[in-house]
Amino acid sequence: MEKCRVCFHPEDRCIEVDKGENLLRAAMEAGVHINASCGGEGYCGKCRVIIESGEVTQKAQVKLSEEEVNQGYVLACQSTINSDLEVRVPIESQIGDKGVLARRPPIPLKGYTLSAKDWAERLPQWELNPPTTKFHLVLGKPTLEDNLSDAERIKRELSKLAGLENVVMDYPLLQALPSLIRASSFDVTVTVLDRGQELRAVRLEKGDTSQRQAAIAVDLGTTTISAQLIDLQTGKVIAEETDYNGQITYGEDIISRIIYSTRATGLAKLQSVAVNTIWNLIQQMVEKTGIEFCSITHLVVSGNTVMTHLLLGLDPRYIRVDPYIPVAQFFPWIKASNIGIRIASGVYLKCTPCVASYVGGDIVAGVLASGMFNSEKLTLYVDIGTNGEIALGNKDWLIACSCSAGPAFEGGGVRHGMRATRGAIEQVRINEVTLEPMIITIGNRRPLGICGSGLIDLLSELFLSGIVDERGKIKTDLPTPRVREGDLGGEYVIAWAEESGTGRDIYISDVDIDNLMRAKAAIFAGINVLLEEVGLDIEMVEEILIAGAFGRYLEIDKAIIIGLLPDVDVEKIKFVGNGSLLGSYLLALSKNLVVEADKIADKMTYLELSTSNRFMEQYVSALFLPHTHAEKFPTVMERLKEAREMAKLGRAGVGGGTS
Amino acid sequence: MEKCRVCFHPEDRCIEVDKGENLLRAAMEAGVHINASCGGEGYCGKCRVIIESGEVTQKAQVKLSEEEVNQGYVLACQSTINSDLEVRVPIESQIGDKGVLARRPPIPLKGYTLSAKDWAERLPQWELNPPTTKFHLVLGKPTLEDNLSDAERIKRELSKLAGLENVVMDYPLLQALPSLIRASSFDVTVTVLDRGQELRAVRLEKGDTSQRQAAIAVDLGTTTISAQLIDLQTGKVIAEETDYNGQITYGEDIISRIIYSTRATGLAKLQSVAVNTIWNLIQQMVEKTGIEFCSITHLVVSGNTVMTHLLLGLDPRYIRVDPYIPVAQFFPWIKASNIGIRIASGVYLKCTPCVASYVGGDIVAGVLASGMFNSEKLTLYVDIGTNGEIALGNKDWLIACSCSAGPAFEGGGVRHGMRATRGAIEQVRINEVTLEPMIITIGNRRPLGICGSGLIDLLSELFLSGIVDERGKIKTDLPTPRVREGDLGGEYVIAWAEESGTGRDIYISDVDIDNLMRAKAAIFAGINVLLEEVGLDIEMVEEILIAGAFGRYLEIDKAIIIGLLPDVDVEKIKFVGNGSLLGSYLLALSKNLVVEADKIADKMTYLELSTSNRFMEQYVSALFLPHTHAEKFPTVMERLKEAREMAKLGRAGVGGGTS
Repeated sequence: MEKCRVCFHPEDRCIEVDKGENLLRAAMEAGVHINASCGGEGYCGKCRVIIESGEVTQKAQVKLSEEEVNQGYVLACQSTINSDLEVRVPIESQIGDKGVLARRPPIPLKGYTLSAKDWAERLPQWELNPPTTKFHLVLGKPTLEDNLSDAERIKRELSKLAGLENVVMDYPLLQALPSLIRASSFDVTVTVLDRGQELRAVRLEKGDTSQRQAAIAVDLGTTTISAQLIDLQTGKVIAEETDYNGQITYGEDIISRIIYSTRATGLAKLQSVAVNTIWNLIQQMVEKTGIEFCSITHLVVSGNTVMTHLLLGLDPRYIRVDPYIPVAQFFPWIKASNIGIRIASGVYLKCTPCVASYVGGDIVAGVLASGMFNSEKLTLYVDIGTNGEIALGNKDWLIACSCSAGPAFEGGGVRHGMRATRGAIEQVRINEVTLEPMIITIGNRRPLGICGSGLIDLLSELFLSGIVDERGKIKTDLPTPRVREGDLGGEYVIAWAEESGTGRDIYISDVDIDNLMRAKAAIFAGINVLLEEVGLDIEMVEEILIAGAFGRYLEIDKAIIIGLLPDVDVEKIKFVGNGSLLGSYLLALSKNLVVEADKIADKMTYLELSTSNRFMEQYVSALFLPHTHAEKFPTVMERLKEAREMAKLGRAGVGGGTS
Repeated sequence: MEKCRVCFHPEDRCIEVDKGENLLRAAMEAGVHINASCGGEGYCGKCRVIIESGEVTQKAQVKLSEEEVNQGYVLACQSTINSDLEVRVPIESQIGDKGVLARRPPIPLKGYTLSAKDWAERLPQWELNPPTTKFHLVLGKPTLEDNLSDAERIKRELSKLAGLENVVMDYPLLQALPSLIRASSFDVTVTVLDRGQELRAVRLEKGDTSQRQAAIAVDLGTTTISAQLIDLQTGKVIAEETDYNGQITYGEDIISRIIYSTRATGLAKLQSVAVNTIWNLIQQMVEKTGIEFCSITHLVVSGNTVMTHLLLGLDPRYIRVDPYIPVAQFFPWIKASNIGIRIASGVYLKCTPCVASYVGGDIVAGVLASGMFNSEKLTLYVDIGTNGEIALGNKDWLIACSCSAGPAFEGGGVRHGMRATRGAIEQVRINEVTLEPMIITIGNRRPLGICGSGLIDLLSELFLSGIVDERGKIKTDLPTPRVREGDLGGEYVIAWAEESGTGRDIYISDVDIDNLMRAKAAIFAGINVLLEEVGLDIEMVEEILIAGAFGRYLEIDKAIIIGLLPDVDVEKIKFVGNGSLLGSYLLALSKNLVVEADKIADKMTYLELSTSNRFMEQYVSALFLPHTHAEKFPTVMERLKEAREMAKLGRAGVGGGTS
């Protein structure tokens, strides 16, 4: 990828970015504040900058007069970087003192995200060898001399061609066999499922369809369900869709779902609703890519223990009561049609094994995808979801716990929270002086709400800029109309009604922040109790892997500022993205890993927190920004100090002026 | 068993029989003719004899006057032998010349029937270790320290208790698991199915039900379906039922069934009808024994290839057309409910593997039960059923063929033919002089019809007594009212209307005999072509095993007289009974034999007769009594000569008088 050097003036702050990057995003990455309220759609017209040298491509100029265009003005959010640039940010866009700004050290915006090349190293077991394989067989036609039955003819060829022995014929396949095999003149494709102990022929198709094979990987979350359509020839994800889990209507967290499931037809209802969500995602992906439904040969679903139980129609009620026992931890390959997913004949489904009632297949999938079970390094894996789960260990041992974080980081329990889809505010900066926000939305649309990464950004910026105190309360007496007193306590308006995509103010309230605080406190407490349990200190952890459905970005430093993650060297922290989905994807592609997943589930020790006093103590201590024991967060305290000074100087310098 | 010596006078013919034997049957076994027309019910009153010494128990004496009783008369059919006896047969009951009768050598009435003690020797692989096993598990209740899932708790106990590893949980079992395991305070019985490659937990019950376990063995015949209910604790058959296959309405032989199956819903119809017959048999057995349906844990079904296909709903149409290809030869374990047999949850069904389109699981089961696949001896196995099948070989090789014999030996295609149930004439003698019959029915009831063994007896007696010529035609000009001209040619009345249980004459006609001739010719031809194929002579065969659903008796010498079996030393010939049912029974009890059955099906060579000219030649030659080439049947020709002489002498002696 070609790189361009972009320098912003008057700060003289320079950054190297990919050619084609958006100019507003480059400014954000460089730590240059430009007022921006509409998420990057070009609607508010606030992010005017002057291109002093170099070339950008502009999408729209509606908010610029002819005179402004002649002066070299562009909207940063509408500009794509084509070359090295010299950019001047006019006073009304940037606000602040050059000298002060220069003091802040450059901080990486986002953690390192694991990519394909990392897995090669982290997962030597991985190979493109899925649990289902298609074999194209050109069978000799039967004669009086060679009068084997249709089924044995296929088995003989599977043995000759691929060395497969003792393949069991799925019963429905036998029923379709004689007419199909003749209609295709004994030229057929057979799909064989490797169930570990048994090879099973599960589908028969006319002619050669061996080049058309796909699988579905699913992350079955309490709040969000994500699915990928994978081309099994190339191993590539060819479509991905996400939606809220339809079960939300029946309760936001797993406990309320379990309670609902104990009603007369509650379990069947929850099952069908989850199946429906998954089925819709599959339909969308199939429509989008134009592949045939019958190309899909198997599904892998990773979810927490309760979600897995509900999907399979297994009664989860004993998960809720001491001693918290699930029906099963390991799940057999079943026909997808058994649970009402009717994609094509002979499509089988596997749920990733669980460890215990509150450490499920999602974390097993994530630990698998992270490769930590192969690693010498002491690794901490944190899945920031509704059912926040944490694993610690290396190739020799693994321990895990779960701390009910709630759905806040997935946009649940937050008034203007939303999933990481188009229109979601995913990055936020707040100018310490003017308290004005700079926002970027997914897809550069006018903002509809705030997604997980946006909420983490927002809370940390509110805290750094002094809008929110260490108890998480919004100060409503500040000299900006963006703070105000609402029905639910203090509010900060991040996008005014006229700039938002909803026609209403988008704001965050004290109650929203409360939910975020509880979520981050639960996860931070979980990390600490887990470390205490094995007598280790956070400094001994060599790698911290963060998973969660945060869209493209999770700004690690922001997560530390709010005390969600411990204050460690940010180099140690890497981002796995949606670990559960990634694990499902890897399992769908490599049957070796199916075996590894079983081993991981078997090996992992479960630490029950619900009966732990230490957890409650840690949790209460963590209900502060960044933490009751501020000394645990030295870099955050330093940054806070700088920000406060900057605000003081800035306010003195510009006299509190707004753009 | 205590033995009694019974001597019949005036012939002075003595025989040793079991104490408690019926006196009429003893007479038949001794070769002493006593007129008897009502099958042994005591209704006709013809079988009067005088007990000169010894003791009998009599059931009824309705047909005897007080004077007769005082003279020592009893009805033979109503008398049970209690001690050594001297019995005088009065002239009106026995008819014949003592000198003449004495010439006939004693001939064993029935072939040796294989019994349990033979299998121990013939089937060293056999052990009482069924494919499904129940395990009673008293599980430790879960605690926070021991918080395995319900499923893993069961698997751990199965491993501890029985060394079973990697047991897969059947999906419906998982669904029932949590409530059931708690309702029974973690004291449960788990049924595990060994599918060869995989152990699968298929059922869960409260408490200890391990002592209550049963299986169903089925012989799925074209004409007749037989089933046994087996106590898996003891290995004993606790009930047995037989009925006509309901599919008969849709065609008498497999070809017409195949044709019916190609109609719109024909296959589904035939499947449901067969399932219905099986289900009725199961219900009858369960009602009779009072066991619970849920004690039944698996079924084994042996049938010919077409019957197996129809039961499983597999399209059999290509079996009918060159090159005669079945859908499958090996069949997976399937849930019985998949084909509509709903006994209880988790009941699995296995069909015995087939060799080819016309050598099915019935013969594989029979060959298994016979133990010939273990034997050094060259063995011929003949299954006399609608789809007559013949196997030849030993432990080193096996070859088999099928010769469509038709249903005559099962009572089909014969006006008064019937299955071997109560009221069926199973043994017949015809006095050469008077041409009067002596008959015994199953259950000693008035006759309702004639079963397979009765038909073989009858045809041979008709032939020996000169009523039927070597072309199988009844001579209607004989001096007895029992022969007559009917709508369908000659007829011989074996029971008059007033003595029968139907209120109508029971007779056999030329057309009936034609069907019997075709059936016996097909089997005899099959035996010869098979021997020719491997270049062996019948004299080299060391053992001939006869299978078929003939009730208790098949009189081997009679089968030789009509040319159904070759004229060899009768010591070589043994009777297996219903080999297919016996094989199903053994497979239901011993999973080792399931493996052996697969090996047998795999190893057996199939010889296709439908395209063989040699078969047609042999068949035509065999359409005579005993055969066109009479020299192949020296002992039969000798016996015929004796019978003719006896008839001449007898007729001269008593002047053709009738009783």
